[in-house]
Amino acid sequence: MNKIDGGVTAARGFKAAGVRCEIKRKGPDLAAIYSEAECSVAGVFTTNAFKAASVVVNSERLALGRARAVIVNSGNANACTGEQGLRDARRICKLAAGLLNVPEEQVFNASTGIIGVPLPMDKIEAGVKDAIASLSETGGESAALAIMTTDTVPKTSAYEFEIGGKTVRVGGMCKGSGMICPNMATMLCFITSDASIAPALLQKSLASNVDRSFNSLTVDGDMSTNDSLILLANGASGCGEITEGSAEYVAFDKALGAVCLDLATACARDGEGATKYVEVHVTNARSYADAKSAAMTIANSPLVKTAIFGEDPNWGRVLCAAGRSEAYIVPERTSLYFGDVKIVENGEPLTLDPEAARKPMLEKDLTITVDLGLGSESATAFTCDFSYDYVKINAEYHT
Amino acid sequence: MNKIDGGVTAARGFKAAGVRCEIKRKGPDLAAIYSEAECSVAGVFTTNAFKAASVVVNSERLALGRARAVIVNSGNANACTGEQGLRDARRICKLAAGLLNVPEEQVFNASTGIIGVPLPMDKIEAGVKDAIASLSETGGESAALAIMTTDTVPKTSAYEFEIGGKTVRVGGMCKGSGMICPNMATMLCFITSDASIAPALLQKSLASNVDRSFNSLTVDGDMSTNDSLILLANGASGCGEITEGSAEYVAFDKALGAVCLDLATACARDGEGATKYVEVHVTNARSYADAKSAAMTIANSPLVKTAIFGEDPNWGRVLCAAGRSEAYIVPERTSLYFGDVKIVENGEPLTLDPEAARKPMLEKDLTITVDLGLGSESATAFTCDFSYDYVKINAEYHT
Repeated sequence: MNKIDGGVTAARGFKAAGVRCEIKRKGPDLAAIYSEAECSVAGVFTTNAFKAASVVVNSERLALGRARAVIVNSGNANACTGEQGLRDARRICKLAAGLLNVPEEQVFNASTGIIGVPLPMDKIEAGVKDAIASLSETGGESAALAIMTTDTVPKTSAYEFEIGGKTVRVGGMCKGSGMICPNMATMLCFITSDASIAPALLQKSLASNVDRSFNSLTVDGDMSTNDSLILLANGASGCGEITEGSAEYVAFDKALGAVCLDLATACARDGEGATKYVEVHVTNARSYADAKSAAMTIANSPLVKTAIFGEDPNWGRVLCAAGRSEAYIVPERTSLYFGDVKIVENGEPLTLDPEAARKPMLEKDLTITVDLGLGSESATAFTCDFSYDYVKINAEYHT
Repeated sequence: MNKIDGGVTAARGFKAAGVRCEIKRKGPDLAAIYSEAECSVAGVFTTNAFKAASVVVNSERLALGRARAVIVNSGNANACTGEQGLRDARRICKLAAGLLNVPEEQVFNASTGIIGVPLPMDKIEAGVKDAIASLSETGGESAALAIMTTDTVPKTSAYEFEIGGKTVRVGGMCKGSGMICPNMATMLCFITSDASIAPALLQKSLASNVDRSFNSLTVDGDMSTNDSLILLANGASGCGEITEGSAEYVAFDKALGAVCLDLATACARDGEGATKYVEVHVTNARSYADAKSAAMTIANSPLVKTAIFGEDPNWGRVLCAAGRSEAYIVPERTSLYFGDVKIVENGEPLTLDPEAARKPMLEKDLTITVDLGLGSESATAFTCDFSYDYVKINAEYHT
């Protein structure tokens, strides 16, 4: 498996574009992804009770299992926009379907930006036309730029691997750096592959990979109305159909996992106001659910995250967060490390040179490991620290 | 029911004192509470897997239902201190029991401050002797000062009411302003009453009142290893035994509830770095559990709390937090108010003068109301905003 460039256009048979249609004050704000052949589609969407219009429309279409294109805008989330919002989301899909000459129900749609404000449909219609006219086999990077909101860098990842002598590719792009801007932001992710795989199996691989990547990511613990991940596979690699339990499935699943992990960790690194990237490893738990609950509770703790910002090896806050999680924990079995430095052994602090304990905290990347000493399951949460700038970014924006 | 002064010495037959024994760098740091007669005792303690030594010892003693005294120190939490910590906690109780000539298992103990460091027992033993020698019927205020850590003000509350011509009093003190300082802080609360009531009924009244006060309070969502509330009732008012289902029980329960609510809201007002006091009311939910989940999720959201700090009527963040709670929500039935200003009606934003929407945000006290429009249950969460100073307080402390 090799890392390659190209984002959503790394896989054969996909085109993309990013254009400016003036929804945002500046920069490109509308992206299109198009597959020359019909795709299997899989997706995961926010479980928030307040769902954006595009999430409602995409969920209906996902059930049909087939897709040809996705239209994404930034600058306006089309959320809390009622019936008008649903009509607008469908109109965008219909317009794109007509221009691309594909079935309307095979066009998906996603939005991110301000909420409670109707989409500026005149601008968006012009943008859809422009983006479709601009579709290109090298358009992955420009599409990645057009979906950004508070992100400071575009986020793409792609891998290729072999199946029976054929090169298969999986590539994607995402945006997200907290659930903010302007009213609330969003994690949006789009992944394409030229593998040949049925929708149900594609969904299975996606669900398991999302659990250990995007669903193990937290910047501030908030989940938006718009969070969406859409995965398209068009079979253009010419590889045979990937079937469940096969070596080919394992290879595909691994490449998809690598793309998901790259994009999720890129979001943590680009977290609002982040000065450090943090991985919380919980090991030797009784169950994966226990490990994940402890890791996510630690990664979400404002006290842990402010201590990391302050470069303070405050192990008490880490144990305390683990202790209030849903994980089964026996204090006398629990050990803790910052980087490679063991700080707590079997529930009691080791007597350490304070400088040695603090050294890992000074790095740009920090690993916290909590060894529960009870089993063999582990989980990792991906996060960042909590700085003055997080408060600044989120307090100083005015609706 | 009248509000009175006196804290834990408002009720008859109780004495208290706060003294300095040099655990902390400055200020009083050891408190004692003593009842002249044997008390019924009730208590609630942290559910954190990492429990401080005092929590382990108190939980054992609570099962016996009787108490005479409580010894509390600030400056050292006696948490993550292993067997030594348990021995120290028992030694404190034994020393106080000998000096007061009461059964050892009727003395309770609580600690708050740094963790992972053994208690300075020489200092504490001197402090226990000094505090017991200083016990006074007007010592409630000095005791409240001695349990403070990062608190900026002492917190006491007391009420009196009549039962059959006798005046009954309930009074208490607490500390807590976030789960911080130095490694992690703690919510500690001690309440006394001169009512006559059996331990099981006392526990029942306490549990229901704690749910709607301390367990509806959040500063940063973190729960400490030491959180404890101990309630003593000594019968010194001379009122008859309060029995379940009686009008007297209702009156006692109401006074206890008022003390709990006063102390819990005082903690929210004194939240670390807080510039505003916030009540989140969720009304017309299908169940109390739904209302409480939505209220607490909103009150814990860093995005909501930073928006309040920024005085921004960012209703999208509030709905979004409610939407990711465990509450059953129908967006089209949900309305939202900042103060008295209706912002969202049946899931869609009202067209409002921006200044009118912003006006309630400028006040020192803010009420956010989310009307779920589905039933008749409601709950309130008590919190504060999230400011630069929260990050400063929690990032700049170095272990």
